[in-house]
Amino acid sequence: MSAIAQSAISFAPTTTTRVVASSSSALSSRRMSKTRNALRLSSSIPARHGKKSSLVVQAINPRSDAADAGKGQRVMIIGGDGYCGWATALHLSQRGYEVSIVDNLCRRQFDDQLGFNSLTPIKSIHERVRKWEEVSGRKIELFIGDVCDYEFLGATFEKFNPTAAVHFGEQRSAPYSMMDRSRAIFTQTNNVMGTINVLYAIKEFAPDCHLVKLGTMGEYGTPNIDIEEGYLTITHNGRTDTLPYPKQGGSFYHLSKCHDSANMLFCTKAWNLRCTDINQGVVYGIATDETMMHPDLINRLDYDAVFGTALNRFCIQAAVGHPMTVYGKGGQTRGFLNIRDTVQCIQIAVDNPAEPGKMPIYNQFTQQFSVNELAGLITEAGQKLGLSPEVISVPNPRTEAEEHYYNAKNSNLKDLGLEPTLLGDELLDTLMKTVIDYKDRVDQRLIMPGVNWKESQSVAKNITK
Amino acid sequence: MSAIAQSAISFAPTTTTRVVASSSSALSSRRMSKTRNALRLSSSIPARHGKKSSLVVQAINPRSDAADAGKGQRVMIIGGDGYCGWATALHLSQRGYEVSIVDNLCRRQFDDQLGFNSLTPIKSIHERVRKWEEVSGRKIELFIGDVCDYEFLGATFEKFNPTAAVHFGEQRSAPYSMMDRSRAIFTQTNNVMGTINVLYAIKEFAPDCHLVKLGTMGEYGTPNIDIEEGYLTITHNGRTDTLPYPKQGGSFYHLSKCHDSANMLFCTKAWNLRCTDINQGVVYGIATDETMMHPDLINRLDYDAVFGTALNRFCIQAAVGHPMTVYGKGGQTRGFLNIRDTVQCIQIAVDNPAEPGKMPIYNQFTQQFSVNELAGLITEAGQKLGLSPEVISVPNPRTEAEEHYYNAKNSNLKDLGLEPTLLGDELLDTLMKTVIDYKDRVDQRLIMPGVNWKESQSVAKNITK
Repeated sequence: MSAIAQSAISFAPTTTTRVVASSSSALSSRRMSKTRNALRLSSSIPARHGKKSSLVVQAINPRSDAADAGKGQRVMIIGGDGYCGWATALHLSQRGYEVSIVDNLCRRQFDDQLGFNSLTPIKSIHERVRKWEEVSGRKIELFIGDVCDYEFLGATFEKFNPTAAVHFGEQRSAPYSMMDRSRAIFTQTNNVMGTINVLYAIKEFAPDCHLVKLGTMGEYGTPNIDIEEGYLTITHNGRTDTLPYPKQGGSFYHLSKCHDSANMLFCTKAWNLRCTDINQGVVYGIATDETMMHPDLINRLDYDAVFGTALNRFCIQAAVGHPMTVYGKGGQTRGFLNIRDTVQCIQIAVDNPAEPGKMPIYNQFTQQFSVNELAGLITEAGQKLGLSPEVISVPNPRTEAEEHYYNAKNSNLKDLGLEPTLLGDELLDTLMKTVIDYKDRVDQRLIMPGVNWKESQSVAKNITK
Repeated sequence: MSAIAQSAISFAPTTTTRVVASSSSALSSRRMSKTRNALRLSSSIPARHGKKSSLVVQAINPRSDAADAGKGQRVMIIGGDGYCGWATALHLSQRGYEVSIVDNLCRRQFDDQLGFNSLTPIKSIHERVRKWEEVSGRKIELFIGDVCDYEFLGATFEKFNPTAAVHFGEQRSAPYSMMDRSRAIFTQTNNVMGTINVLYAIKEFAPDCHLVKLGTMGEYGTPNIDIEEGYLTITHNGRTDTLPYPKQGGSFYHLSKCHDSANMLFCTKAWNLRCTDINQGVVYGIATDETMMHPDLINRLDYDAVFGTALNRFCIQAAVGHPMTVYGKGGQTRGFLNIRDTVQCIQIAVDNPAEPGKMPIYNQFTQQFSVNELAGLITEAGQKLGLSPEVISVPNPRTEAEEHYYNAKNSNLKDLGLEPTLLGDELLDTLMKTVIDYKDRVDQRLIMPGVNWKESQSVAKNITK
């Protein structure tokens, strides 16, 4: 595990220090008021590695990193065996939240069906959870089953009695949803009906449970106006209303998330539920403090053209000497975030339950990049490691604008205390080095796009070249 | 059948006259340019019943009412056994369109399940189609099956090879969708996946086929700004875009139509399909020229609290001496249209195929009324017939605003030639008299609302009192 460097923000279960490159006045009064148990220690104390730091060290939110930060909270992670779900489950468990994982393991099945594999050698969910208990002394309760099976789901809510449910449990690949008709139907049925079931289960078995539901920034599409956080105040013909932001999903997957958001808003109002809707950007990175605590806890990393996403995939392509595959002109701009920020954001959302009947919406990303910008950053980082990354433009298999305006807001989570881990040299180095460690596991036949939006029909083509 | 009066606009298969209460200049040049084969006869000629009319008689669109108006068009009516679908199938068949009906007869099954019945004694679909051929000499091809069964649907598209498909084939009751969890899931699965199947079937088997898809005005909810037709031009922070109008469906049913619209817009663009999305208001009335041609062709009329809609239901309540059931304050305002206009609008939509890759959206209603206004109109009409209609306010079982701004646009279909049949005394008389003819068939236990939005859960209450 030596190649996997520790991140700039160290895991420190018994302390609450965090290094931030800002003055002590950086904490706005607004954030102070929203961050529970906030403290500021403006003294200059030793930072990690024993070096005297000139940065101001702040314990900005001692509760959030403390070993008992989640005391009294019972959090059900639906989809806890996936990329974001696994990291989130461990992050919360380590901080004293009682965590359960609900998962039908379909993500592993998709790999089996399509001949894919994670770059990293992930363990079975049973081994993962056992190892986590051994390493951390914390127990994660495991419920293997399908949210589309209401008998299972209802009984699970009744038994675990969560104070919060974090719902990652959906088919999350746009290309997968566009492979063929049956996968389009599967994606919308699985995602939309699964979420309706979760809403009913909360209503019937845990009415005070706060639902934190993962959507995607892709719900918005690429409008020619600024993207606000879920709602837009519109003045039209002299009258004004604040309405759901107009959505334009660009695949059956993205559309399934649009449908979820609309269904959830309705149920929140009709049933007075507590729901938070999160529109997450493209997640990158592999390391969180907890998944790095033992090799058996390592997270998955996808490089294939169906489940791999832009930044991670480009790193892997660079590492194995495959040209980075830019689709079309490469002007496609999206919001991105480190998986370390995913877990931090989810904790913030869980710690700030929505009021009954209201549905706050957060845009969960930290930076915007175009595909060309990403390819440029990874070229530089790769060159520093002695690689010679190349970039090629391949015909765009998607139906999307390749040059467009993009300006999305993301202040809600920052206002609640999010300290972003921005993409920098150190992080790219860490990621690239991890990737290089496992590059022999890469099947290069899985890299080129095999799913074309225009060609979706009854029978999928075999996408393994 | 004597009680069923002929409507003001007579059925005249061999003539093209229509009485309109307007001057000959009423036809705008815009409509003239869009109405195929438009003609104006400004002379004062005898109107029907032999009376000399002072109104200007215009043959405004001779093609649309001609016996060969639809020559060369093959129209598949999905949901052709339902209220709107049956009337539309006969209307188009009578005008020379080759018509097929695709239906799984689930509307009849809902009645069987819930102990409901149509006020009017409708015949089986097989008897209906046989009788239609006998009466009109026109054949309607019948395909009994489910749009959610893609093997059936694909084969049906391949066999019938439609130039247009009119898709009414969805579960269309908001209360039904709110009865319990399994009906919520059924409604969204049936409607959303059925429509995805139709889109795939067109793409695979009839790529030039024009899809005319029925949505609902209820997709918009009740925003505090004017409701435009499907799209809204928004200026925000100095930039402008035309985006899908923000939707706020108020039940799992309404939401299923929102999801359909979003899926359809995506497929239209990604696959270059021809699709028209229609947001229809609340349909009222029973008579169309064709359904009145023989008692065995009569259309269904629903008065129960699940499938009955405001205006029709109030008429039936007034006729049987049950107080009209206004939900809450009764300020709920919606768009309404006569079923005669439904069939006319669908013909207009079919005659004006969308361009590939574009999705025109029409708001299909002719007048706005609040529930209280409807109750007032029906009270007056009932009194003229010697009834003593009463109005009661019952607790609103829905989650909806009971007093709100409402101003929806509906010019697109008028621009294409729609001549609305507005709600007037004569129409209410006709409808009330039909209702009185069949009032002994009313089961009064089905009238009071039995489905409450807030109470939806795993097991539905028995809604028959």
